[in-house]
Amino acid sequence: MSSREEGVSRRQLLVGSAGVLGVAAGAAGGYAAGPASRRDAGAGVGPAPAALDAPVAFHGEHQAGIVTPAQDRLHFVALDVISKDRAELARMLERWTNAAERMILGAEAAPGGLVGGGPHKVPQDTGEAYGLPASGLTITIGFGPSLFDDRFGLANRKPVALQKLPAFRGDRLEAHRSGGDLCIQACANDPQVAVHAVRNLVRLGFGVVSVRWSQLGFGRTSSTSTSQTTPRNLFGFKDGTSNVKAEEPDALAEHVWVQPQDEAGAGAWMTGGSYLVARRIRMQIEVWDRTNLLEQEQVFGRGKQEGEPLGETKEFDRLDLDRTGPDGKPLIPTTAHVRLAHESQLGGIRILRRGYNFTDGTDGVGHLDAGLFFIAFMRDPRRQFVPMQRALAAKDALNEYIVHTGSALFACPPGTEPGQPWGRALFA
Amino acid sequence: MSSREEGVSRRQLLVGSAGVLGVAAGAAGGYAAGPASRRDAGAGVGPAPAALDAPVAFHGEHQAGIVTPAQDRLHFVALDVISKDRAELARMLERWTNAAERMILGAEAAPGGLVGGGPHKVPQDTGEAYGLPASGLTITIGFGPSLFDDRFGLANRKPVALQKLPAFRGDRLEAHRSGGDLCIQACANDPQVAVHAVRNLVRLGFGVVSVRWSQLGFGRTSSTSTSQTTPRNLFGFKDGTSNVKAEEPDALAEHVWVQPQDEAGAGAWMTGGSYLVARRIRMQIEVWDRTNLLEQEQVFGRGKQEGEPLGETKEFDRLDLDRTGPDGKPLIPTTAHVRLAHESQLGGIRILRRGYNFTDGTDGVGHLDAGLFFIAFMRDPRRQFVPMQRALAAKDALNEYIVHTGSALFACPPGTEPGQPWGRALFA
Repeated sequence: MSSREEGVSRRQLLVGSAGVLGVAAGAAGGYAAGPASRRDAGAGVGPAPAALDAPVAFHGEHQAGIVTPAQDRLHFVALDVISKDRAELARMLERWTNAAERMILGAEAAPGGLVGGGPHKVPQDTGEAYGLPASGLTITIGFGPSLFDDRFGLANRKPVALQKLPAFRGDRLEAHRSGGDLCIQACANDPQVAVHAVRNLVRLGFGVVSVRWSQLGFGRTSSTSTSQTTPRNLFGFKDGTSNVKAEEPDALAEHVWVQPQDEAGAGAWMTGGSYLVARRIRMQIEVWDRTNLLEQEQVFGRGKQEGEPLGETKEFDRLDLDRTGPDGKPLIPTTAHVRLAHESQLGGIRILRRGYNFTDGTDGVGHLDAGLFFIAFMRDPRRQFVPMQRALAAKDALNEYIVHTGSALFACPPGTEPGQPWGRALFA
Repeated sequence: MSSREEGVSRRQLLVGSAGVLGVAAGAAGGYAAGPASRRDAGAGVGPAPAALDAPVAFHGEHQAGIVTPAQDRLHFVALDVISKDRAELARMLERWTNAAERMILGAEAAPGGLVGGGPHKVPQDTGEAYGLPASGLTITIGFGPSLFDDRFGLANRKPVALQKLPAFRGDRLEAHRSGGDLCIQACANDPQVAVHAVRNLVRLGFGVVSVRWSQLGFGRTSSTSTSQTTPRNLFGFKDGTSNVKAEEPDALAEHVWVQPQDEAGAGAWMTGGSYLVARRIRMQIEVWDRTNLLEQEQVFGRGKQEGEPLGETKEFDRLDLDRTGPDGKPLIPTTAHVRLAHESQLGGIRILRRGYNFTDGTDGVGHLDAGLFFIAFMRDPRRQFVPMQRALAAKDALNEYIVHTGSALFACPPGTEPGQPWGRALFA
């Protein structure tokens, strides 16, 4: 049995009727009537646990896929715009929005998707997700710094926080895994649904965009809601225990959502949006797997089995960085990952992590090419990711076992209302 | 929510007690007492639908992961043996068997896995699946033709059917995606569980084997049981409708399991085993996605939405290859995939298909690198896959949209009994 066998196919119920789509969105707690309920229903505050195959609301104050409880699978793609025509780009974003509104509910990318156009037309949906449920699909888009060059007349709309990330010590970035004019983050509890969403948006962008790089993630490495347990990364450790969570509206306002005062003028369209930092972090898992438990726990600063801060007993016990052992040395070493990444060591900096484990075949010399596809959302990368990564790159004991091979930054605009395409405020 | 939140963690219940492991295996319909119940409980005949997170029996007449209802996710790895020591190789297979017996039940690769050895020992399990349920994990191993060269004294045990596949018209095989001395096929309903299994076996093979290539599959493209619905490939079509199924014992004996008379002498150890053919088939999805519905349906010979043979109405309607349209031409074109792959066109040849969709990033020129990782099990590749692929390579209309980029063949030995390692009969 699989998700294909379970329950009624939402896609079969919904196809081809905007009316039915609307009802289904309401029933799923999505957009209903006015701005008040939209905000409640959107990805904003305290999402209730939902079935794995249920839909997630598309419209709202913020884009879905940020504080939405992290789904299990990811397909992320970065694209270059190959057209020089600003209006064509805006029209593509409109097509994307219309298709995303439908796909998020489990419908095809366009009405009558598979066969509706008749034998002599190209099908309006590629079909591989036909019959599968919505599977918690979210589609989140972002704009890279390079989009604001001189091609589309957007240079004067560039947010001040959207500056290409600086080089960090130890970086071994590959051009074909870095950058991009646009990104699409598709998350779902069924990878076929996430891949289908990206592929259909790419199809709708034919002639306008070209795929620069893409990354599949098979297991989430962060919780974004207190309703979720902490997952494990490929080093076998619980990761992101002290992540910013959907249930912390004040922390989200402070650390994740762009506030009106942040981007006056050029970047005002980003209010309610968030900056996405992506880093492809290759893990040297074969080296790690020959390292003893003591070294592993000292590197992270947590116990392997429970995830407790060293010296404590439970995962969520307070991280006491001042505790010392009988030898007078700190129980959590000065180079431990949890110490260096902790807000107390970074002037209060926090970020919302939403990463995934990956395995991309082999590296050609006998090892699995595996690691962590780090994704984090934040209010201002200059004040959050950059100083945090500088501190980690300088001292983190984990650096012996990891290499950053890809890097990108995107400005994810705020959410949309029905009838409003992604990026409307930017292209207005 | 995710599988991490659902139900009791089998791993937490089972860890460290062989007694409890045994009970759990029995309760899950696994190996219980004698050969009769083993055959019933193994992967042989009519497996009952099971929960997505339940364990699959390890021991039995045949290896699990062949007629087991196809799980949703795959991690496949091909390995080269770097040791020259036959005894060392046999010992590794023994370690693999012990670890697989445990992991299939949701336990760690060795008792006390994560922390049991104490701080100065290397953990006996890498930990990333700790707390996850068994998730229907199966681990299936196979031996490639190259294992039977002069390194290990196995040349005189080489099965007659284990001949390197010939070149086929249109092949564009890449060496780094082809061949291998050994393979591990790990299938599960949670990809993290499948990846964990492969990674821990690779770890247990350190110094003996090296990873040659690996492939992640995210969505099954075949059903192997009548309890499953037919999934869709990345061309959006239902695939493998007339696959050999677990509920057809006579067809399995005829087409899938090696029979005593097949491999007298050198290959007698393969009785009850099966040959695995793997082909990495890149799909030109961007080209396909700009092709009209008529062309797509004529290429496959089936309708896109229902999967019916052209001219019929339902997926499982009989494939009538003789029906003609008003113009006197066959309704199912002479170059259609279903016609060429049909047993009636191939002297009665059938195979058990067990493939997966894949997406491996991008091809570097703006396209998704996606396709079908074809896996099929059969009694004799010389009489089944080779003539079938020759016929398809010569005429199949699908060839315009696909390229075979990887190829491998493995002899998967029969199943094991408790206390008996994989390959015992081969290394005896």
